[in-house]
Amino acid sequence: MAGNSFGNIFKISTFGESHGNALGVVIDGMLPNILFDFNLVQSDLNKRKPGQSKITTERIEDESFEVLSGVFEGKTTGAPITLIVKNKNQNPADYNHLKNVFRPSHADYTFEQKYGFRDYRGGGRQSARETVARVLAGSVAKMVLNDIGISIRAFVSQIHSIKLEKNIEQIDFSEIENNIVRCPDDETANKMIALIEQVKAEGDSVGGIITCVCKGVPVGFGEPVFNKLHAELGKAILSINACKGFEIGSGFDCVSMKGSEHNDLFEINKNQQIATHTNHSGGIQGGISNGMDIVFKAAFKPVSTIKQNQYTLNTSFENIEFKAEGRHDPCVVPRAVPIVEAMTAIVLLDYYLLNKVYC
Amino acid sequence: MAGNSFGNIFKISTFGESHGNALGVVIDGMLPNILFDFNLVQSDLNKRKPGQSKITTERIEDESFEVLSGVFEGKTTGAPITLIVKNKNQNPADYNHLKNVFRPSHADYTFEQKYGFRDYRGGGRQSARETVARVLAGSVAKMVLNDIGISIRAFVSQIHSIKLEKNIEQIDFSEIENNIVRCPDDETANKMIALIEQVKAEGDSVGGIITCVCKGVPVGFGEPVFNKLHAELGKAILSINACKGFEIGSGFDCVSMKGSEHNDLFEINKNQQIATHTNHSGGIQGGISNGMDIVFKAAFKPVSTIKQNQYTLNTSFENIEFKAEGRHDPCVVPRAVPIVEAMTAIVLLDYYLLNKVYC
Amino acid sequence: MAGNSFGNIFKISTFGESHGNALGVVIDGMLPNILFDFNLVQSDLNKRKPGQSKITTERIEDESFEVLSGVFEGKTTGAPITLIVKNKNQNPADYNHLKNVFRPSHADYTFEQKYGFRDYRGGGRQSARETVARVLAGSVAKMVLNDIGISIRAFVSQIHSIKLEKNIEQIDFSEIENNIVRCPDDETANKMIALIEQVKAEGDSVGGIITCVCKGVPVGFGEPVFNKLHAELGKAILSINACKGFEIGSGFDCVSMKGSEHNDLFEINKNQQIATHTNHSGGIQGGISNGMDIVFKAAFKPVSTIKQNQYTLNTSFENIEFKAEGRHDPCVVPRAVPIVEAMTAIVLLDYYLLNKVYC
Amino acid sequence: MAGNSFGNIFKISTFGESHGNALGVVIDGMLPNILFDFNLVQSDLNKRKPGQSKITTERIEDESFEVLSGVFEGKTTGAPITLIVKNKNQNPADYNHLKNVFRPSHADYTFEQKYGFRDYRGGGRQSARETVARVLAGSVAKMVLNDIGISIRAFVSQIHSIKLEKNIEQIDFSEIENNIVRCPDDETANKMIALIEQVKAEGDSVGGIITCVCKGVPVGFGEPVFNKLHAELGKAILSINACKGFEIGSGFDCVSMKGSEHNDLFEINKNQQIATHTNHSGGIQGGISNGMDIVFKAAFKPVSTIKQNQYTLNTSFENIEFKAEGRHDPCVVPRAVPIVEAMTAIVLLDYYLLNKVYC
Repeated sequence: MAGNSFGNIFKISTFGESHGNALGVVIDGMLPNILFDFNLVQSDLNKRKPGQSKITTERIEDESFEVLSGVFEGKTTGAPITLIVKNKNQNPADYNHLKNVFRPSHADYTFEQKYGFRDYRGGGRQSARETVARVLAGSVAKMVLNDIGISIRAFVSQIHSIKLEKNIEQIDFSEIENNIVRCPDDETANKMIALIEQVKAEGDSVGGIITCVCKGVPVGFGEPVFNKLHAELGKAILSINACKGFEIGSGFDCVSMKGSEHNDLFEINKNQQIATHTNHSGGIQGGISNGMDIVFKAAFKPVSTIKQNQYTLNTSFENIEFKAEGRHDPCVVPRAVPIVEAMTAIVLLDYYLLNKVYC
Repeated sequence: MAGNSFGNIFKISTFGESHGNALGVVIDGMLPNILFDFNLVQSDLNKRKPGQSKITTERIEDESFEVLSGVFEGKTTGAPITLIVKNKNQNPADYNHLKNVFRPSHADYTFEQKYGFRDYRGGGRQSARETVARVLAGSVAKMVLNDIGISIRAFVSQIHSIKLEKNIEQIDFSEIENNIVRCPDDETANKMIALIEQVKAEGDSVGGIITCVCKGVPVGFGEPVFNKLHAELGKAILSINACKGFEIGSGFDCVSMKGSEHNDLFEINKNQQIATHTNHSGGIQGGISNGMDIVFKAAFKPVSTIKQNQYTLNTSFENIEFKAEGRHDPCVVPRAVPIVEAMTAIVLLDYYLLNKVYC
Repeated sequence: MAGNSFGNIFKISTFGESHGNALGVVIDGMLPNILFDFNLVQSDLNKRKPGQSKITTERIEDESFEVLSGVFEGKTTGAPITLIVKNKNQNPADYNHLKNVFRPSHADYTFEQKYGFRDYRGGGRQSARETVARVLAGSVAKMVLNDIGISIRAFVSQIHSIKLEKNIEQIDFSEIENNIVRCPDDETANKMIALIEQVKAEGDSVGGIITCVCKGVPVGFGEPVFNKLHAELGKAILSINACKGFEIGSGFDCVSMKGSEHNDLFEINKNQQIATHTNHSGGIQGGISNGMDIVFKAAFKPVSTIKQNQYTLNTSFENIEFKAEGRHDPCVVPRAVPIVEAMTAIVLLDYYLLNKVYC
Repeated sequence: MAGNSFGNIFKISTFGESHGNALGVVIDGMLPNILFDFNLVQSDLNKRKPGQSKITTERIEDESFEVLSGVFEGKTTGAPITLIVKNKNQNPADYNHLKNVFRPSHADYTFEQKYGFRDYRGGGRQSARETVARVLAGSVAKMVLNDIGISIRAFVSQIHSIKLEKNIEQIDFSEIENNIVRCPDDETANKMIALIEQVKAEGDSVGGIITCVCKGVPVGFGEPVFNKLHAELGKAILSINACKGFEIGSGFDCVSMKGSEHNDLFEINKNQQIATHTNHSGGIQGGISNGMDIVFKAAFKPVSTIKQNQYTLNTSFENIEFKAEGRHDPCVVPRAVPIVEAMTAIVLLDYYLLNKVYC
């Protein structure tokens, strides 16, 4: 109930606070006998890491991980896999200025009201640092997905009003990591980077959209009527800090289309496979994958922490003026790319395993 | 796993096919000693009912319900409540023309591939008729929510390109049921109705957006980090047939705002309550309700069943031309309003009960 | 949470009261494309049926069932299967004498305290009539288990101090249904029957032990460390009304054995299969089936309802004298045999499906 | 599904192998704002610790623990609590002799068959060392139970044929820790100890029974019909390594009693409280606690590891002779006492929280 676990068969339980001893995850239900890819985990962690470029926070956090259980002789055993990243140099005193303030659009107020008590050090459990554990788990999920030919690629498709004007078919996924904003089009990326730098200089923040494309998902993933594949993906993605919206396939654009335009007509494609002529369904029909690319988008809000004076309340419910200190991301979207991939991987592996029941 | 149950404490298990004997729900975890409001259930069913107006399908389905268990002397007992709606006049022969076709953008293909076998009568379990059970369960949830002062009102805010141009504050919720499209503005409603009628005449279909506003939700509902309130609402809503997108508060519009515009500043409002100056958070911060109105939107695609010739494949994977027979909704959005309310009620009651642990 | 569902992949939700409209079950996660064996269900129901012999209650309850969903053209579809048995001739007035009394060793007191309100008609939800739904679900589980070569046979091995003095190897399972007490040894059965008749004449009741043997379970069922196969079986069996104890393999007898006696030595048996020389493990090692027969026992208490005067409290907490009216079982054990089989089938199918993940 | 988590609201996920880096637990759903009692945890760990007396294994394992998350300023925060115990001096080479053998009555064979691969170091995940994590979680549960007046005391009531001949009422619980076998009667304890020493000298092992008494449990814990309190306790206890049987209240002895003897008559006791005259129900009626002491027993088999030659198979399925090396417990029962208490505490806290829904 307490909501720190996710998944059905591939089940993860995450833990840790921004400034506690460690963050981590226990992964139950991982297939045994799979080579544990240490490099993949580290590579994914590095994409989420703070301080990775001039458009992220300059704060450096150590992101090396340890394996506490579940791996023997380099392979998974079927026992729970526990991975942790230790926090370094926690100095709670650095956060005393947050102790008595309810920061605007943060979860300080709701956490204190719900739990009656709050770990105020860098946001404690509400901090986006929590997503380290998601990335760890996602990397483990990918170890199996890679084996069965499923790839997941997320990228930044919009920052503020700067949009990537390409169809999915036009995108070269190998370009995603070519720039620090993770937009697979250098010209658009440069505009995005310039905007983020400008916003940073203003002490402000900006949001954006991440698009995710999953290739190689076979027909059959999804458990209607409530655990439809896109519904579970939606929950997984909406649970990421700062995410405000999720859409599958045509998404909100479907509203201004007619059925005759929107329907995906079945056909035998040039590879002699069953396919649909268009993919407004985003690869999922009736809640079950149909073999086409799974395509979804997620909206991320501008970071709440800004270096400008804002009115708010303190914990005595008095009006105060507050301005954030320290180093913060002006735009969290590029660093959210590996998190979106991780949550997607977790869902896809879980639903792959659920679907094995029908084999 | 098999995904026909939903919820944690207030847990529902739905069943039934479009043309089986009955549809229904078993509700486990309902509070005992609550007056069972038969009229509320029937009233909600009637809002979902086919044939209710000229812009819905003309097909008449009986929507009277029976209570099989869990209610004694007019009150809930704490035992599982089972409610069913019987289907009438099922004639499978009427559906023989669907037996061997994969209709475009329906789940015929994915169901047959996943389960190896398909109840083709009116779509079987994939039919939107399944949502009868959701409405039944939602009405039961409302019996408690009403008692604790929580109201849920959904309405149609867009059909194709016709938008309701009103802020939440400007809306008179009592107007929702004043017109058959469930848009709380008669002028806009009339335009929507005219458009739907025109689309119907063309044998086509059209989609739209439903906005939902929950008032009276206290601070504290939501179970981070995975079971954030808006993540669970997102899953609940995205699991409804034809839903393609979900957004909370500012949603996708957050992307083009800066942090300094988007942040909801805390203040003491005119009623001497803690409030936020704006509500871009949509009533949820850090995944936990903050006492403000919960506001979200959902996109519904144009119905897949249209009375136009379309290319598709049959179950022998041959190209065929297909045109739907019978009577169908040109626009499902007005009838989806009670379904959105029902799923919202189910989530809110469940999270209310989860939050009682902290009392 | 509310505890009326059971299982992980093969998940059942039961409902209904002793004197409500109907009892039944929704089965989610049943494999599709399985022939639905109507005769098997009816046959199992008949074994549980009251009034089946002179040693059960003389009360006649109708046990014919209806299929509300999930079966199409005689086969399962993968959609939830709903089965119900309607109650007949409920006359709540017949139970007015139970309204204000807390019967000894019944759940009247605990239900009223927990839920604040109680369906007193024949015990409502606490009645053993609830087990009708378990038998319905168990029969469905057996439809798959039969296909994969797993058989489950339970029988009465003790009534009061009359024990069946046979090893598992000596038992002819085809004899179980040869007598009304379901003990596969006519001589012992006759003694048991005579004892039950005598106890019935005294207005008293008597308990007993059921032994269950599962053959054909392959190696690998069980999910350590908490969902060990015998732990789940234990929960399933202990949840049956009147069950007070569960033991696997050697059970409580293991206490007076030494390790050198108790250890099951691995060997290649005469059929050239891996086996253990003895089976004190009861077919489960480390929580996982090892391919040997699964053997467990369950203790059932003497029925609480007796036709003798007993002191107790009424709902105003005053001392009263109470004597049960109506017709009741002097011994519930023979009728519990199909219930034990049903719960075992439900667990075994669920764990079979869970284990498919590793295929 | 993968079975390394347990509980509904108070939910634990355990991890770790006998000779991995660490064992531990993530506890989700702990109440916030509770003083974290470090001494209680260490005290409970010490009761489970190997090498604590002459009748346990002489192997010394370090049992100091670390808190990785969920505790801030000495109090629980409502975030997941992670506790670990690091393993020391793992030398896999010490276990090479186990690599290719299926030890009798161990889980070597079933693990290797199920997972296709086995961590053979000291049994890996199947080792009873896994129970360290259960004790850690149980201690946390007790922090709340102590506050609400619930106490749990387990003790050894039988070793082989040496029984504690006292009623529950005659037991002085403060005597449990007076001797190394944890039997609250010194004379009986001495006999037990002598027997264990003798068995140890023979290179053999012996089993026993643990009785557990829970005082102060209010009326209302338990979620019928499947999650009856004693059914969940049964599962919890049966999931402990070496446990072969569980009985509540009168248990298997109920079989030879008549209803007129077995029924617990309600009365107002000398403290003017509602009580039952006897407690054959073991404090649970209809699956719900009735306010009386909860009393259950569990049977533990003689340890499988003995220092005698035994026939078995190696992993090539050849007959071999095997004799255990190293230091092992001749009797695991005294060390299982804190484990039984821990699992009981975990269940009781979980069901307390579940019951809060009805407040």
